[in-house]
Amino acid sequence: MSEALRVAVLGCGAVGSQVVRLLTEQSDDLAARVGAPVELVGVGVRRLDAPRDVEVPDGLLTDDVAGLVARDDVDLVVEVIGGIEPARSLILSALDNGASVVTANKALLAEDGPTLFEAAEKAERDLYYEAAVAGAIPILRPLRESLAGDKVTRVLGIVNGTTNFILDKMDSSGAGFSEALEEAQELGYAEADPTADVEGFDAAAKAAILASLAFHSRVTAADVHREGISDVTAADVASARDMGSVVKLLAICELRGDQVAARVHPAMIPRSHPLASVREAYNAVFVESEAAGQLMFYGPGAGGAPTASAVLGDLVTVARNRLAGTRGAGESAYADRAVQPMGETRTRYHVAIDVDDRAGVLAAVANAFADHDVSIQTVRQEGRGADAQLVVVSHAAPDAALAATVEQLRNMDIVRDVTSVMRVEGGDE
Amino acid sequence: MSEALRVAVLGCGAVGSQVVRLLTEQSDDLAARVGAPVELVGVGVRRLDAPRDVEVPDGLLTDDVAGLVARDDVDLVVEVIGGIEPARSLILSALDNGASVVTANKALLAEDGPTLFEAAEKAERDLYYEAAVAGAIPILRPLRESLAGDKVTRVLGIVNGTTNFILDKMDSSGAGFSEALEEAQELGYAEADPTADVEGFDAAAKAAILASLAFHSRVTAADVHREGISDVTAADVASARDMGSVVKLLAICELRGDQVAARVHPAMIPRSHPLASVREAYNAVFVESEAAGQLMFYGPGAGGAPTASAVLGDLVTVARNRLAGTRGAGESAYADRAVQPMGETRTRYHVAIDVDDRAGVLAAVANAFADHDVSIQTVRQEGRGADAQLVVVSHAAPDAALAATVEQLRNMDIVRDVTSVMRVEGGDE
Repeated sequence: MSEALRVAVLGCGAVGSQVVRLLTEQSDDLAARVGAPVELVGVGVRRLDAPRDVEVPDGLLTDDVAGLVARDDVDLVVEVIGGIEPARSLILSALDNGASVVTANKALLAEDGPTLFEAAEKAERDLYYEAAVAGAIPILRPLRESLAGDKVTRVLGIVNGTTNFILDKMDSSGAGFSEALEEAQELGYAEADPTADVEGFDAAAKAAILASLAFHSRVTAADVHREGISDVTAADVASARDMGSVVKLLAICELRGDQVAARVHPAMIPRSHPLASVREAYNAVFVESEAAGQLMFYGPGAGGAPTASAVLGDLVTVARNRLAGTRGAGESAYADRAVQPMGETRTRYHVAIDVDDRAGVLAAVANAFADHDVSIQTVRQEGRGADAQLVVVSHAAPDAALAATVEQLRNMDIVRDVTSVMRVEGGDE
Repeated sequence: MSEALRVAVLGCGAVGSQVVRLLTEQSDDLAARVGAPVELVGVGVRRLDAPRDVEVPDGLLTDDVAGLVARDDVDLVVEVIGGIEPARSLILSALDNGASVVTANKALLAEDGPTLFEAAEKAERDLYYEAAVAGAIPILRPLRESLAGDKVTRVLGIVNGTTNFILDKMDSSGAGFSEALEEAQELGYAEADPTADVEGFDAAAKAAILASLAFHSRVTAADVHREGISDVTAADVASARDMGSVVKLLAICELRGDQVAARVHPAMIPRSHPLASVREAYNAVFVESEAAGQLMFYGPGAGGAPTASAVLGDLVTVARNRLAGTRGAGESAYADRAVQPMGETRTRYHVAIDVDDRAGVLAAVANAFADHDVSIQTVRQEGRGADAQLVVVSHAAPDAALAATVEQLRNMDIVRDVTSVMRVEGGDE
């Protein structure tokens, strides 16, 4: 067997402690898989005396993280600190010092991925990050390798467990957003400040990573149109149920000609769609490609142990590459695709409108859609008199045309209120 | 860019013609992914004049397949002929001549995988076979690489589209087996001689491959306990529905201590289980591991284009390895695990029994279970008088004990008939 591969782990929180545990407990199995012993040589932390879920072997814990990364006897660096700095500087320093890197840092990859990829390319080292999207679900490797001979056209993902838990709760219990959020917080599925999750920032970072990988392009979080779920009402969820659908926060990445469209927003999907049955805090990513057709990858999207599993999978691959003196398929072969503005992106809308119940109402509403060249797929009329409601589902049209249609509806005399506006995905256009 | 990698394709049927099409149409993309041009240098077929779905470039078609494999200028051989011979000899010859091999041949891998793996090891060449299990669904690569630092404990798969179509039809329409099979044949989902599918031979081959990979062991089709679906009745399906379950043909691979259990049989699973919503001819593989938890992979399990997508994914990886002068994680690092006999494998049974409606019947039936140390989870009594029926679901017990219990029930005076016996999976034990 070859000489040992030396690993430094940066961060020892929920994920890091599980990585250290697996590295220690599974060392025989890891050595068999890699073809050489894998030796933990240091664990970098901010505070030496913080409580931890794992017993770090004597002498390995250090708060000189920069010094650990600068050591010339480290082959592999695992970064599970998270956030932009000091994670970015540490990764760049590790690559510069000749180490290969495994990271779970979605925020950093979504904000500044190209800088990291270029540094890895220049250093001729691996940079793997399976754990950055959808936790333990192997999705990046299938996109990067299994589908390398195919052409991915669309990725639809439920990539945030907190929002899926909240929307699932609203669907199953009829609860409103605030009530469901409160329950999620009590159960530990949502943080005290839930902004990053419920406003879609976390999902947008993952959408950027997925779009970059699926379409061999460079998409950052700033390119992703983002809407959260805090405006989703019990009425929206009930309206979805009435048409056999369910509301999910989706990360949607599409190849449209030479352009890439990437967006995060709540949407209604039919209950027969494979993503509709993703319950509680689970994640799933649905992929459409030209030859393979429709694939779905499902599993826990977060949590220390699942995320550590993904980190260890990367570690084994990177270690094997290192032993063989080679590298995996990097991010260098990419096309510089423009990002399609949201207004031009084709979407479908579900619109519920409280109207006066009098002759000509339906025609007037239909005209508002026609004024913006939006074709209607179905109209359903519910109730009579003061409770009359029209529910319209459009065919696909530019998002700006749909938004303008809704604006026009709001200003019409016969329209008392537009009670629900939501995009529709996962069906026929 | 490096010099071209030279590829020979053996077989030009449903899968082969799609591989040839993708190799030709996507050659620019492939070259970018691989880092070198990928050149098709020959397509080996049995009959030169057979009709084909693809136009093979001039001069490449040959019926001297052995000669094509023996050429010393071929880097990669794609075997999509299927069956045991001549596929095995051709693959061994290709490896012996220094080519790397990609194959979709599940029957051969399940019957004689170890011979192929050893030949690849000896020749120091790659042997990849993602397309052999569940068509386009990337499942072997995640098991082999993404979960390499984790410990897989269980794999539950719907890996045969024909039987899933038939069972789904029986569930949705109430049809019997013969009627559903006939519809599957009319729609092209089942062959004129459906034995390999409906009797579970195809699923058993895939179970052998999955068990080998998931548990780093050597399991062949002969090690897999196999029962098909031809005895599944409309009454079984209705009985499953009554308890909120659905009948699926499952390939089940489990790590039990140091032993491996691998079996294929119809089973009832709860409708809330992710596998329950796999409809029509789709496939899905559900994986449980210690750290990652529960993962599922879903997609089309067959078809020329989806299978070709998986072949091309392998081809890109193998080509990249070849360029780098290295190999992927092979099958050499394995533990020699014994296969647990079916009688010792712990399963759960659902048993429906027509009984005389008189005092003491339930106690007598309960005693039959107790006689074999089988613990009962639930008993449901239905009907009265001549229609009285008991439905018993057991806790997990050795399969032999459950079989003996059913045998004893059949011989009891108060039992008029045992109308449904089926294993139960996917719930609590």
